[in-house]
Amino acid sequence: MPDTARRPRVVIVGGGFAGLAAAKKLRRAGVDITLIDRTNHHVFQPLLYQVATGALAPSDITAPIRWILRKQTNITVLLADVRRVEPARGVVVIDEGRELAYDYLILAAGARHAYFGRDDWEPYAPGLKAIEDASEIRRRFLLAFERAEKSEDAAERDKYLTFVVIGGGPTGTELSGAMPMIARKALGPDFRNIDTKRTKVILIEGGPRLLPSFPPELAERAQRDLEALGVEVRLNSLVTGVDSTGVWIGKERIAARTAFWAAGNIASPLAKSLGAPLDRAGRLIVEPDLSVPGHPKIFAVGDLAIVEQDGRTVPGVCPAANQEGAAAAENILRDIRRQPRRNFRYRNKGDLAVIGRSHAIADFGKVRLAGRIAWLLWLFVHIMYLVGFRNRISVLLQWTYAYLTYQRGVRLITDVERYKPPGPG
Amino acid sequence: MPDTARRPRVVIVGGGFAGLAAAKKLRRAGVDITLIDRTNHHVFQPLLYQVATGALAPSDITAPIRWILRKQTNITVLLADVRRVEPARGVVVIDEGRELAYDYLILAAGARHAYFGRDDWEPYAPGLKAIEDASEIRRRFLLAFERAEKSEDAAERDKYLTFVVIGGGPTGTELSGAMPMIARKALGPDFRNIDTKRTKVILIEGGPRLLPSFPPELAERAQRDLEALGVEVRLNSLVTGVDSTGVWIGKERIAARTAFWAAGNIASPLAKSLGAPLDRAGRLIVEPDLSVPGHPKIFAVGDLAIVEQDGRTVPGVCPAANQEGAAAAENILRDIRRQPRRNFRYRNKGDLAVIGRSHAIADFGKVRLAGRIAWLLWLFVHIMYLVGFRNRISVLLQWTYAYLTYQRGVRLITDVERYKPPGPG
Repeated sequence: MPDTARRPRVVIVGGGFAGLAAAKKLRRAGVDITLIDRTNHHVFQPLLYQVATGALAPSDITAPIRWILRKQTNITVLLADVRRVEPARGVVVIDEGRELAYDYLILAAGARHAYFGRDDWEPYAPGLKAIEDASEIRRRFLLAFERAEKSEDAAERDKYLTFVVIGGGPTGTELSGAMPMIARKALGPDFRNIDTKRTKVILIEGGPRLLPSFPPELAERAQRDLEALGVEVRLNSLVTGVDSTGVWIGKERIAARTAFWAAGNIASPLAKSLGAPLDRAGRLIVEPDLSVPGHPKIFAVGDLAIVEQDGRTVPGVCPAANQEGAAAAENILRDIRRQPRRNFRYRNKGDLAVIGRSHAIADFGKVRLAGRIAWLLWLFVHIMYLVGFRNRISVLLQWTYAYLTYQRGVRLITDVERYKPPGPG
Repeated sequence: MPDTARRPRVVIVGGGFAGLAAAKKLRRAGVDITLIDRTNHHVFQPLLYQVATGALAPSDITAPIRWILRKQTNITVLLADVRRVEPARGVVVIDEGRELAYDYLILAAGARHAYFGRDDWEPYAPGLKAIEDASEIRRRFLLAFERAEKSEDAAERDKYLTFVVIGGGPTGTELSGAMPMIARKALGPDFRNIDTKRTKVILIEGGPRLLPSFPPELAERAQRDLEALGVEVRLNSLVTGVDSTGVWIGKERIAARTAFWAAGNIASPLAKSLGAPLDRAGRLIVEPDLSVPGHPKIFAVGDLAIVEQDGRTVPGVCPAANQEGAAAAENILRDIRRQPRRNFRYRNKGDLAVIGRSHAIADFGKVRLAGRIAWLLWLFVHIMYLVGFRNRISVLLQWTYAYLTYQRGVRLITDVERYKPPGPG
């Protein structure tokens, strides 16, 4: 006999923007929530590239998920891997085979960077999704200067001072834009044998322009700003090979000891386990109410899902993840109240991308900004959204200091290597 | 024919307190210095335990060695491993067999924690010397609560909530003293299934009292303060076994999933390579002028050396390392000026050890302090000595915030494991 007095059990997989937004929306609801994440922390992804370039520390842009939700009494946070969903039995299976039953399931497990069939490139061009990725990129970025300093061969030094960023979306643009100034201004005085002004940053994009999700004029402005910073932008360039000594574009070879990957993502393999339709990037193609086709009690949100709206897809940015998480939770609340579900509508409050040290582009539909004013706006929005008081103050202070002095206090290389290190030459 | 106009080449191995003090002392000297370190950063070791317990971030207590020395024009910093010294040829051999010639060599390569024949304990009880050690201890400390929260077995939960610290010197005392409050106050509100007040911290010391380098009254006071915080202090207890489920003291078994090692150090293997006399902990027994017996152009300072003074050994603390580094450099300067060398004299300006959240003990010879006032002094001294502006302000802010709210912003578990993880039970 079903226990009709039982509170509905909601399981949320993932503590990113979408998962947290769903949890918070259910704050006052008479439900029992379990939020599961593989890590103990939420990452403020828009600032990952700042960790990757040694401008911020990992702990500046992370906060323990438990801590964020500590005051929400209807939620339990579990540090666990979700192995699979068994919709027929209404359970998710976590590590050691333990099962968690759900009445509603919100999948917000996100995406990883992907190499689309060339996983062998990963050791030579790591991507940037998790905080560990950022630490790895930082390690390689800083080690390249150390190795150049040590090298007694001029050609070898140049290879160490050449950085290739593959992929001209927001991540690639922000990452490549941050590197030249750090190399020249922050690292310059530290070295004796190398001239860090010789640092070359090359941004490679397969398509005809940078930042395809932005209007063309802003993308062109971003490209000009990048070039003014010293970034070499290569459009219409398909990468055909990456190894420890360089990157191939067709038959052309760029000699570089260090490359980074920002050219594509693939959704968490959890998406696949449901047997529902996926797009090319492995994302669940959801119904207008954000539920998974054929599984009305399962919602997919954030980078794990693809939402069609007015013939376009909703972009994979934080505000969209926030809105989707909240909308899925809202539809669960409507189910409980026996109200009809609502279709999700993405409200684009504007897109922002930062270029280098003090420039950005902003797109608010009618209003478009570029340059320093867009950057100040970017700064304000990002600091305000940072989770947790400590971070906000600390990040603001460090930015102010870094901005005024070009000094970087976070240039820590630890001995941890995530991949088998590429062998010499 | 010797080139008499050539500037003397000084090689310093190690960028800890002793190595940096030597480098700075030679700031205005007509010498060419190369400072070699295996890492790119200096670590403020007295605060390592704060990183280990999630109160500070790794980057708060580290600074790039290059950055610290960026304005000193007579120095080159190399990130490299020193393999051995060849005194007969006057070279040090670094990685890839490259050789660096020296006229004077200062060995300041420090020490590692050591298990004295029981290296098999290391995976179950990691020690605390480098920043990576602190991250590993933090990872295990925080993961234990996560695993307790997930466990459905009460006995298992208790094992996860029991922490054993082996060794009652300053590191063990500070580490164990920091844990109870963090467990109760900072972590308490974050968990649902466990009561973090049940956390047990057991400090095991082989000798008859804690802190043998402090006067007995202060050590007793420290023990009382620790016990008031809830730490169980076990004196005269020799550890005879450590595994993934507990620690043995003779035939007694303490069931605990997590143990940490603070019971001993061994000097860098570089010390051994000279063939000069060593003490039990592998340290070079140096001459009164800090040179290595039989090698007048080689000095050994810091944790790599053992210095006798008035029938006692100079303690392995930061002020001693600073003074030794400076004294060795001064003797090089005196050689160059053809003045006789001076014997080293350690001037003890006082010893400090912190107990928990707001207590410390301080020993200035005639003046001895304990309790809150000693803690305020400790706080002041440590913040003032922190290398680098960013760190000082940031650490001060974070401490103030952590002190007022018990909230910890740095509770980051990353997926990096330094050792093969101990298997379940």
